[in-house]
Amino acid sequence: MNNFGRKFRLSIFGESHGKSVGVTIDGCPPGIPVSEEDFMPDLDRRRSGAKGTTPRQEKDLPEIISGVFNGFSTGAPLTVIFKNEDTRSKDYSKLVEHPRPGHADFTGFKKYKGFNDYRGGGHFSARLTLALVSAGVIAKKIIQPIDIQANLIKVNGNINIDKAIDDAIAKGESVGGIVECQALNIPIGLGEPFFDSVESVISHLVFAIPAIKGIEFGSGFQAAEMYGSEHNDLIIDESGKTKTNYAAGINGGITNGNNLIFRIAVKPTSSIAKDQETFNLKSGKVEHLRIGGRHDVCVALRVPVVLEAVTAIALADFFLLADLD
Amino acid sequence: MNNFGRKFRLSIFGESHGKSVGVTIDGCPPGIPVSEEDFMPDLDRRRSGAKGTTPRQEKDLPEIISGVFNGFSTGAPLTVIFKNEDTRSKDYSKLVEHPRPGHADFTGFKKYKGFNDYRGGGHFSARLTLALVSAGVIAKKIIQPIDIQANLIKVNGNINIDKAIDDAIAKGESVGGIVECQALNIPIGLGEPFFDSVESVISHLVFAIPAIKGIEFGSGFQAAEMYGSEHNDLIIDESGKTKTNYAAGINGGITNGNNLIFRIAVKPTSSIAKDQETFNLKSGKVEHLRIGGRHDVCVALRVPVVLEAVTAIALADFFLLADLD
Amino acid sequence: MNNFGRKFRLSIFGESHGKSVGVTIDGCPPGIPVSEEDFMPDLDRRRSGAKGTTPRQEKDLPEIISGVFNGFSTGAPLTVIFKNEDTRSKDYSKLVEHPRPGHADFTGFKKYKGFNDYRGGGHFSARLTLALVSAGVIAKKIIQPIDIQANLIKVNGNINIDKAIDDAIAKGESVGGIVECQALNIPIGLGEPFFDSVESVISHLVFAIPAIKGIEFGSGFQAAEMYGSEHNDLIIDESGKTKTNYAAGINGGITNGNNLIFRIAVKPTSSIAKDQETFNLKSGKVEHLRIGGRHDVCVALRVPVVLEAVTAIALADFFLLADLD
Amino acid sequence: MNNFGRKFRLSIFGESHGKSVGVTIDGCPPGIPVSEEDFMPDLDRRRSGAKGTTPRQEKDLPEIISGVFNGFSTGAPLTVIFKNEDTRSKDYSKLVEHPRPGHADFTGFKKYKGFNDYRGGGHFSARLTLALVSAGVIAKKIIQPIDIQANLIKVNGNINIDKAIDDAIAKGESVGGIVECQALNIPIGLGEPFFDSVESVISHLVFAIPAIKGIEFGSGFQAAEMYGSEHNDLIIDESGKTKTNYAAGINGGITNGNNLIFRIAVKPTSSIAKDQETFNLKSGKVEHLRIGGRHDVCVALRVPVVLEAVTAIALADFFLLADLD
Repeated sequence: MNNFGRKFRLSIFGESHGKSVGVTIDGCPPGIPVSEEDFMPDLDRRRSGAKGTTPRQEKDLPEIISGVFNGFSTGAPLTVIFKNEDTRSKDYSKLVEHPRPGHADFTGFKKYKGFNDYRGGGHFSARLTLALVSAGVIAKKIIQPIDIQANLIKVNGNINIDKAIDDAIAKGESVGGIVECQALNIPIGLGEPFFDSVESVISHLVFAIPAIKGIEFGSGFQAAEMYGSEHNDLIIDESGKTKTNYAAGINGGITNGNNLIFRIAVKPTSSIAKDQETFNLKSGKVEHLRIGGRHDVCVALRVPVVLEAVTAIALADFFLLADLD
Repeated sequence: MNNFGRKFRLSIFGESHGKSVGVTIDGCPPGIPVSEEDFMPDLDRRRSGAKGTTPRQEKDLPEIISGVFNGFSTGAPLTVIFKNEDTRSKDYSKLVEHPRPGHADFTGFKKYKGFNDYRGGGHFSARLTLALVSAGVIAKKIIQPIDIQANLIKVNGNINIDKAIDDAIAKGESVGGIVECQALNIPIGLGEPFFDSVESVISHLVFAIPAIKGIEFGSGFQAAEMYGSEHNDLIIDESGKTKTNYAAGINGGITNGNNLIFRIAVKPTSSIAKDQETFNLKSGKVEHLRIGGRHDVCVALRVPVVLEAVTAIALADFFLLADLD
Repeated sequence: MNNFGRKFRLSIFGESHGKSVGVTIDGCPPGIPVSEEDFMPDLDRRRSGAKGTTPRQEKDLPEIISGVFNGFSTGAPLTVIFKNEDTRSKDYSKLVEHPRPGHADFTGFKKYKGFNDYRGGGHFSARLTLALVSAGVIAKKIIQPIDIQANLIKVNGNINIDKAIDDAIAKGESVGGIVECQALNIPIGLGEPFFDSVESVISHLVFAIPAIKGIEFGSGFQAAEMYGSEHNDLIIDESGKTKTNYAAGINGGITNGNNLIFRIAVKPTSSIAKDQETFNLKSGKVEHLRIGGRHDVCVALRVPVVLEAVTAIALADFFLLADLD
Repeated sequence: MNNFGRKFRLSIFGESHGKSVGVTIDGCPPGIPVSEEDFMPDLDRRRSGAKGTTPRQEKDLPEIISGVFNGFSTGAPLTVIFKNEDTRSKDYSKLVEHPRPGHADFTGFKKYKGFNDYRGGGHFSARLTLALVSAGVIAKKIIQPIDIQANLIKVNGNINIDKAIDDAIAKGESVGGIVECQALNIPIGLGEPFFDSVESVISHLVFAIPAIKGIEFGSGFQAAEMYGSEHNDLIIDESGKTKTNYAAGINGGITNGNNLIFRIAVKPTSSIAKDQETFNLKSGKVEHLRIGGRHDVCVALRVPVVLEAVTAIALADFFLLADLD
């Protein structure tokens, strides 16, 4: 559903081409300084416009409509909305009968019995990540001094990211990438196993981000090829600091005070400039499809700030739930 | 916390060396045939005893103590418990002060302020997966005819699994592996985005299983090196069948009717026969640690049935939540 | 918290004198016809203006900002907001230090550490019932043909309600009342005991409405003075129809197909025209307080439509959760 | 469903005539001293045997099967079970076709499609209150020094309770009563409005107890006949102490530091010794029904300790959720 969290609790809403996109944050503690300007740096990082991102240009101005008074959070639900302005819905009208491969057109149509707002992906649109980034801004304030940084470390298998984007544009293709996230200054004791391990909650949120295909913590898939004596992180002092950090700062689902580190795989954007042959539900035949609209060549370019946001959201909930010393 | 699910809802409890381990399943529909014998095939697959698994021998006999009447589920909470019998707690007494690397000894001690049951990992023990497997048995009945199969496809990077185990035993080492899971006959429309995508809920449960370091769906990490035109699964008929299945049967977090497929990475067991140098909290020095007790050389050998179980649990909840045609 | 429901799930937000009040409804099934006009009849019933209600005049025009497309619910979260316009916040500025008796000024200040929006009660304001009424409009559509009707049956102990209001106005007093709610055409099988009995969920929501002091179902408090042979509702046909309905249409927390009926007690409005002697936190003395602002003489006059709404919300969630034949 | 609570979270299970009844408490903080003996005083208060209570004699010995180690709670789920011993299920075999008035026989049969365990009320049995009382024992430890006391203040409208019971026995009748509950030493700031007001959560749990027909807080139904100037509790010092306590120690759903006080109405036991005329589903006719089995003449006699338990459970959850100074 569209709610997440136990104590720091999000409720998101909105569609790509509807009136707005927004989020209500319940459980934000009172007394946190919040202004609309505070959202701008992360929103700017998420915004399109750079090479490889969609030419759709939204101002993405956040409007706080509840939960802030005299510059501070009140403890009541904090709602931020973004009005949609640069929408061109006519681009999408034919896609009801000719679902785009890799998109949720077909599943959305089936699950919602034909009533889903299909324009620009509707509620499935990556535009909903505006809500995540906004909640992340608040979450980052709550978990201070935890410091989260995510970076795109590879595009299409290439660490020269600029070149990989140029190559994709030249070919009329889209490309994917790997984003790595680290969080420093983590207290010991976050995480609520059995079910709510740190990895569980982060991965839950990560797979809510469109286009994510995998996640690995610390040693990740490489762990499957290591011996136990290599993989075990030997503790070297009483604070719990370890010699290596294959565990990604987590044991038994609980933070151990070392850095949290994980990587995610982002698929190539499903909308591509090239023709594709896919089934037309109306004609009952496989037919050529050329996708209009405006899209990202590499959506992974815009993922790091979203990944930081969901990580902060997960940690904020753990932080508020934990009874730390 | 120790609850999971919205409509098919688990509550698990127990410790490795306490009186018992168990699970209460709330939301099981009435009228499902259930007997204690039904649990045996999956419990047998999970049980130790084979080469590479711990010599601890538990009978693992399930006892249904509520929720079944005249051979059928009643609709009331269904509780299954397992008594612990083959426990040797003296093995663990020294580990309070000398936390084992890779285990939750240190984090458990810190989070629970020294009151955690440290014997055999206590509530963090892989023995808790008995509860997951049991719930999986019920879940598999609910989601029929969906068919779930998980297999260990590599150990320590080797598809000759037998050899990899022999090698690890010879070296006094432990090893990890890759487990792949497929689910066939999936209806269209399971999954509850935005937050409860199929990938989100499965990964949430997967990372509750001890020793998991990564998960990838369909193309997974490989997706980050593919072009969009390769990665897009072209729809070939009106049922939504696709030519390829890089999407793992999921678009926009919702099942599209193609097979669900994903892989997980299992780390090498943290308990190894070899000496390790790690911090002793009492002496305040790094000291040699030799771990007693009885352990798996390759815990991944016992993971497939657990992975099937959590997959079934996730799908059962989606199935009961969905308003399918 | 500010979320409620399992499948039909509300998230409310807003303050009396902030920018807006609103609600996001998650879990609304797709395909329900919804327009902004649909909200007007119930909003009109809630609105002030009649004798005994506050002279604050808000237009209360609902704006749907997500979840509706081409006149139908889409299955995505449906958000309705109301802009606040007729606010006069200066009226409230002195009340920070001199908390009003019967209001949440003191508890809000303490719980939220002085950061709560105190203007007009802030998030505690009865203005939040706009959100409940709006969600109720959607809920009523979902549960058709269930028919819910609530009426104010007594004011200040008097069935001549008009007279009771005149009397209160003449005295500069406020008065309370009794509201009765009935729901007809209820299917058998709604309710999810053990904890989520029909009475439990309705009373949970009812006590979220400001100013409610009690609730009783069917025979209610009178049951405590009846014999079992009188109180038992004898079943008279195979549909489960009963001769009497002291059970209020509920047995074991589950609807039995007879009418749901319950009554609630509404206290007199806390804000009164008369002087009151209460503690001034700043001066440290008991002092006279005269409350400015604009208030209801009898808030119970506006409660029936709110009570219908929360009843519909409870039943809609049960309806969507139940596996009815 | 059979779970309740956000941080102090119960999962209950069991049937009247099945193997056992029990509860798992998740979220119990570590380090609370717990032994099986600690449960006995409250279990003894709940047990039958006194005049007016059922002659069914269960030993009601609690067995802790998880979550306690070396005499303290561990922070892991704490499970307590009670084996059923004195069951005589043959008494109930005829009631499948001839549902008892006032019981859940009819609704249970319909909702669970004939698969419910009908013996002794099955999962609907008041025997499940064993689970509530057990959880209450733990909750009372958590919320110290809050002191909760509930008393039966009237039976069948009579404050001479002994006489009222004798009268009912002589007539082959059952009778109801009023139970009042007070909680002292309450901190300011418990309660999580908008939806989780103190009244909301307490009433939710109260209506999970079988046989409850109404609840009123402080002034309760009497509030509907009072003027605002009478009803407002004037604050008399800086701690928030009030001159009167019609608000029951709650404003805006949040505790104000004054005593919590509320009353509930308990209906007469549905099972009576007298003949009743009610519909027989098999014969299709209204027929005489004489109920066998062993029952309470006045179940209200056993309610006070259950009411204390649910009050403690509600307050424990609020206490663990709140960020008190």
